[in-house]
This record gives sequence, C-alpha cells and structure tokens, in this order.
Amino acid sequence: MNNKTSIKNAFYAQSGGVTAVINASACGVIETARKHKNKIGKVYAGKNGILGALNEELIDTDLETDKQISLLKQTPGGAFGSARYKLKGFEENQKEYIRLIEVFKAHNIGYFFYNGGGDSMDTALKVSEMGQQMNFPITAIGIPKTVDNDLPITDTCPGFGSVAKYIAVSTQEASLDVLSMAETSTKVFILEVMGRHAGWIAAASGLIANNIKEPPHIILFPEIPFDKKDFLKHVDRSVKNNGYCVIVASEGTRYKNGKFLADAGTVDSFGHKQLGGVAPRVAGIINKKLGYKYHWAVSDYLQRSARHISSQVDLDQAYAVGKAAVEFATSGENSIMPVIVRKKSKPYSWEIGKVELSKVANVEKKMPKNFISKDGFGITQSCKNYLRPLIQGEAKVPFEEGVIQTASLKHKLVKKKLKKFKV
Amino acid sequence: MNNKTSIKNAFYAQSGGVTAVINASACGVIETARKHKNKIGKVYAGKNGILGALNEELIDTDLETDKQISLLKQTPGGAFGSARYKLKGFEENQKEYIRLIEVFKAHNIGYFFYNGGGDSMDTALKVSEMGQQMNFPITAIGIPKTVDNDLPITDTCPGFGSVAKYIAVSTQEASLDVLSMAETSTKVFILEVMGRHAGWIAAASGLIANNIKEPPHIILFPEIPFDKKDFLKHVDRSVKNNGYCVIVASEGTRYKNGKFLADAGTVDSFGHKQLGGVAPRVAGIINKKLGYKYHWAVSDYLQRSARHISSQVDLDQAYAVGKAAVEFATSGENSIMPVIVRKKSKPYSWEIGKVELSKVANVEKKMPKNFISKDGFGITQSCKNYLRPLIQGEAKVPFEEGVIQTASLKHKLVKKKLKKFKV
Repeated sequence: MNNKTSIKNAFYAQSGGVTAVINASACGVIETARKHKNKIGKVYAGKNGILGALNEELIDTDLETDKQISLLKQTPGGAFGSARYKLKGFEENQKEYIRLIEVFKAHNIGYFFYNGGGDSMDTALKVSEMGQQMNFPITAIGIPKTVDNDLPITDTCPGFGSVAKYIAVSTQEASLDVLSMAETSTKVFILEVMGRHAGWIAAASGLIANNIKEPPHIILFPEIPFDKKDFLKHVDRSVKNNGYCVIVASEGTRYKNGKFLADAGTVDSFGHKQLGGVAPRVAGIINKKLGYKYHWAVSDYLQRSARHISSQVDLDQAYAVGKAAVEFATSGENSIMPVIVRKKSKPYSWEIGKVELSKVANVEKKMPKNFISKDGFGITQSCKNYLRPLIQGEAKVPFEEGVIQTASLKHKLVKKKLKKFKV
Repeated sequence: MNNKTSIKNAFYAQSGGVTAVINASACGVIETARKHKNKIGKVYAGKNGILGALNEELIDTDLETDKQISLLKQTPGGAFGSARYKLKGFEENQKEYIRLIEVFKAHNIGYFFYNGGGDSMDTALKVSEMGQQMNFPITAIGIPKTVDNDLPITDTCPGFGSVAKYIAVSTQEASLDVLSMAETSTKVFILEVMGRHAGWIAAASGLIANNIKEPPHIILFPEIPFDKKDFLKHVDRSVKNNGYCVIVASEGTRYKNGKFLADAGTVDSFGHKQLGGVAPRVAGIINKKLGYKYHWAVSDYLQRSARHISSQVDLDQAYAVGKAAVEFATSGENSIMPVIVRKKSKPYSWEIGKVELSKVANVEKKMPKNFISKDGFGITQSCKNYLRPLIQGEAKVPFEEGVIQTASLKHKLVKKKLKKFKV
C-alpha cells in the first residue's frame, strides 16, 4: 500500500440470494471499519450489490448512525440491495472489471468486501487481479454467505444455520399439527424447502427425529434420485405404522434421468406450462396412487428471511466473518475469505480462519455420502453431529407493535464523478 | 346436580383444525379442574376429539404430571388428537348422541368441555339437550378456538392472534428479502394464507404497511371478488412505482362467479386435475400478462402451528377461556361459551364474558365492510385498530437442542366399560 495515501475507502456489496443474517455481516464490516479509521476512511455500500459499483451508486454508510448500523444485526434481507449479477470472465468482458477499478479509483477505494457465495468469490478474485493489472491495487476480501451451505473449506456458511433452525422448528411444529389431524383428516404433509443442488436445508429437518417413527419420516435430497415406487412404499408404510407421514422435499428433487420433479410438464387449463413447486407435485403423486388426504407447504423466501427464529450461532458467525474481513484487510491480507473453523462439536467451539479466494471460487460442496441414511430418506448420526451445533441459540430480536424492529437507513448516495456506464 | 354424586368427572375434547395455542386452553381446563376437586373428579380427554367419547377412548389426564400439563402451553397441535367429525342432527342420527350420554354415564362424566369452532358449539349444545332428554344432566361448555377468527360475539378466537402474528412477521421479513432482490431478480412475491370464507388472516399482513408504498401492496380477500384486470393493473403499478410487489392471498380468493382461483382446472401432463394453491395460480396470471419474475410461498400448516412466534395476548386468552370454562361449569352455568370482551383498544384490555351456545352455534363472522379499503386490496385504520392488539407480545417458549421444548404425555386410556360402538 502506498504510504502517502494509506487511508483508503472501502466498498462493500451484497451478492446473490439474501439471508436472515447477511446484514449482520454488513454490521461486522462497518462497525469494525469504524474502529480502524487510521486505515479505512469511509465504507461505501453498493446499491443493489455490485451494480452499485458499476453504476457508481455508492451508499455512504458514514451517514448512518451507530444505532442504525447496530440494528442491521436484527434486519433480514439485504439492507443495501443485492444483485443476481455475475461478472463474466475476463476474456468476454474486461470492460466491467475496468469500470469497477475506475469507480474505485475515482472514490479512493482500496478495499473490496464482497459478501456472497462461490460465484462472488470468483468475482472478488478477479477484481483483485484486475487491480494489479491496472496498477491500482485493491485489497479484495470475500465474505461467505449462502443459505445453501455449499461453500467448501468453511465449516458452514453464514445464513445456513438460521434457515436450518427455521426448517427444523417448522417441521417440528407442523408435524404435531398433522399428528393431531391424522385420524380423520390429513395423513400426509409435505414441506418444500430450498436446495436445488444440495440437500443441506432438507437435512436440517432430520434433527427433530430420534427414530424412524418420528417425523420427518421421509426427506428428499437432490443427491438421491427420486424412485417413485420406493418412495410410495415408504409413504404407505409410514401412514400404516405411524398413522401419518411427514415429508420434507428439497426443491431440487429429481428423477434418475436428472429431470426435476417440479418441472414435470404441468399445464393449466389453457395449456400453458405451469412452473410448479415440488411439494404439490409430490402431493399429486401420493394422492393418485395412495389416495391419502394431504396438505403441503412451500416456505420459499420465508425460510431464508425468518430473522425472528435465527440461530444465535449463525448470527455470531455472520458478524464474525464481516469483522474478520476488515481485520484481515487492515493487517495486509488480500484475496482471501474468512472461514469458520470447527474446533469441537460437543460443546461446539469455533474460530475464524482464512482461505485463498482461488480455493473457494466456483467450488460447490455437496452433502457427504455418509450423511444420508442407507435408504436415502433420512440423515445419519454423523450428519446430526455436524448440523446440531449450527442451530443452537435463539438470536434475540426486539419487537415493536407486534412485529420485528428493523434498521431504517438513509441510503444516501455519494456524488457521482464519472460518466454513466451501460451495464 | 344431584348432591349424592356431586363430584363428577369431566370430558374435554379438541375439535377441527388445531392451532398453536389450543393446548393452552387444554392446560387452562386441566389446571383449573385440579383446583376444584370438590366438584370435578378426573378430566378425561377424548383421544382424537369427539371420537374418543364415541369409541370410549378416554385419556386419563390425572396420570400426567403438573409439569407436563404446564408444558401444554408451549406445545402446538392438538395434544390429545383432534377430529374433523361433525355429529349429524338429532333427527338423522340420535344414536351418536345417545352413545355419548351412555359413555358419560358409564364414566360418571358430568361436564363436557368442547374446544372448537361454530360447528363444535352446535354439538356441545345438542349434547346438553340430549342429556336433559335422557335424564342424565350434562354441563356443556364450549371453548372457542379457530384460526379463522369467525366466531361471533367474542372479540377474537384463540388461535387467531398467533397466526396473525406469524403472517404479519413473515410478510415483513419476506418483503425485506424481495425488496433487496427486486433490481435484478424477483419483483413479485405471493404469500398464500389460510382463510376460505373470511379474510382475517390475510388482513393481518396489512399491519406492517404504513402507506401504499409499503408491503403488502395487495391483499386478496375471499370477501372481494377477484377482478383479474384490476388486479394486474395494481401489480404493474406497484412494480413500476415501488420496484416490487408483495401480495398476500387468502386461499379462498374467488372470481365474481364464486369459482375459487385455486380450483382453476389445472391439469398435469397426464391430464389429471391438479389441486393447486392460489399462490402458484396468481403467479401464473402475473407471469403470463406482465412477465415479472416471481416467487411464491404457501404457509399452510406452518402458520397455524408456529408456536415459536405465538402472540402473548393470544396465548393468555387461550388459557383464560379454558380456565373460565371450568369456573363457569363449577359455578352452575350450562350451555354457554366463554368469550373475550374488549374493554379498550389502546392500551388493549379485555375480560372474560359468556354467551349462550345457541347464539354462536353455526354462526360465521366475516370481516366488516369498513375493514377493507375502498380499492379492495388493503385494510383500513379501523381494521388495524382492531387487529393490532391481538398480535402483541411474544409468548416465550424454551428451546432444547435448538428446537422447541414440548409436552410429552403418557396418553394412558381409561379401561373400557361398554361394548364397541361403530362410528
């Protein structure tokens, strides 16, 4: 770093699908940066993620009070706006990277904090490389975030523990409901959860079962090809033995040929293709063959935004990776991502480590084979030992007028200095 | 009451769809009965509701510890099993009523506490009348319960406040999620909620909006015929003005001709009729005409079993009506239902009153016209003033291993004395 201009501003952006605790990472970044005024000037947050940098729409977080920044810890969603916008490779699209560096130059930005998943880690890495190439060094630090829990190396991804807790508790509660209705009414209940490629979220529902008689009786993983006959046999057996059957289905549940159950070619009465959930599809399969009365739920965004039932461990880790990102950056690290390192499972203890961005960029972690039970419909004790600590503790959130109290930010943009850029 | 046998046993049963707090009413009944040993002997709970009486399957709650009975306050679902089983009218089916009285006679049951909605109040009334007719007087007391909030006279129905809080908070959280994604991804979010005939639950989502720019931007009520053109205009305007549109749809949303949106004749690729939710249907309508990217959620049983986010007011009222039922019964009242009487809205204060069963049996309360805004897509200030108190307070629930701690009952049945009865 150049000594003459040793105080640089920082750019922070949220990327991809948001979580119940991504703003806790933002809080960790901003609060920690405020403690390192000798190295970091202002923290600019990208309005709608990386688009904020490309469009030179920089939110001046210095204008937000300490109180409001602290409230970020209890505010779900992405407080500055996120973006599903992946920068293309260097070869195809150098101009976006060049634009980023130009905006960073114009606003004296020397730190790039990118809060996202595997794709975002790839972007952060490229930004760092481009800075070198353009002779404007950028300290690029990735901050892990994904409800999918699919980043490698880190013990877990902030955001996952809270959705896992939501799914475990919701499955527990709904199962008690179904159980009480089963004699004369609903016998099968299907809860659809997120997870297109990996079954981590669905797996979390398995934490409430102590044996095969207890719900959820069936978990459907994207990793296990859906075998209709075997599945129906299990459903029928559960209803006959237990009186009811609770099923938790990953949205990415697919047939052996790779076709998603949710893309089963359903059409409405006008012949238009319906984009359906996997839950109604599974319900239809059961009803047609077994005739049991069913109910189904699709938790969708509710599961990943449910800050009112966030895991304390998850919230702590989300904050910690944001804080660590700034501390790593100010102590001269570059092109890394803070990770959660599990020291012990019982009782759970963890610390912050780091990994090079190149090791996590575009790498996807699936569930290990020994985490799924032999019949393919449940989780093993190893999986429980891994998951259990992540849903511990209920992160408090103050309520106001019966609903949760959230941050209310000014979102004031910094004055633009450059010409408009066409994204 | 005959003085020689002044101590009678009580029969308690849960009826219809369960709630997050119906067991708090059970707790109120049992704990209060335990304090009136001079009048009430044992409390028998019907296994699977009224079926428990017909089948002579009586759970002896005396064998449950005080601790477990107390844990009922934090256990969702129906702890003794509920039933969707409506006794037919006298003329059609006297033998079921006669059987009930026979079972009550055999087990010295002098009190009948029936915890349900309008249908159940009718049953309770008939049981009381039949007892008179058969010269075996039964004190029949109804205990209000329904998430639909559709019982008349009472200020609200225990169970409703908690689902209202769940829907308000979930809409708040998911809206923050959608808002942060809207620039590059999801612009429309649809949450389907319960309410086939009345829009009370959907209305609760309106508590989070302070003005028309704030979510939910559109609420669909069963009371207001769905006008596709007008609806699409509102969706489009919200996306254009606010960047996104959050819609909360009652499951009972219907066209002017009375046809439910959810029964829109969708068929799968094999030509089989699909039983669809209203949320995917609404999503399809929007996608076809406006092309906006959408997400949808169906909360189904999750909303009514979510004990982790129950309203304290609701929990208190659920307990209070159970307690009051026993107190009314032991002080000689008969054929009544305890009701919640609102004394004041700001701050909310209420007390327990009573109403004759004949006044509530089979009566359904819909939303008053002045609770729905003129355009038909929102709620009025009067509605907010009514609803706001009902979602106040967060009823604590202890967690264990990351999920909620619930009662674990023995469910031991009393020895049968009668011949089998064919239900």
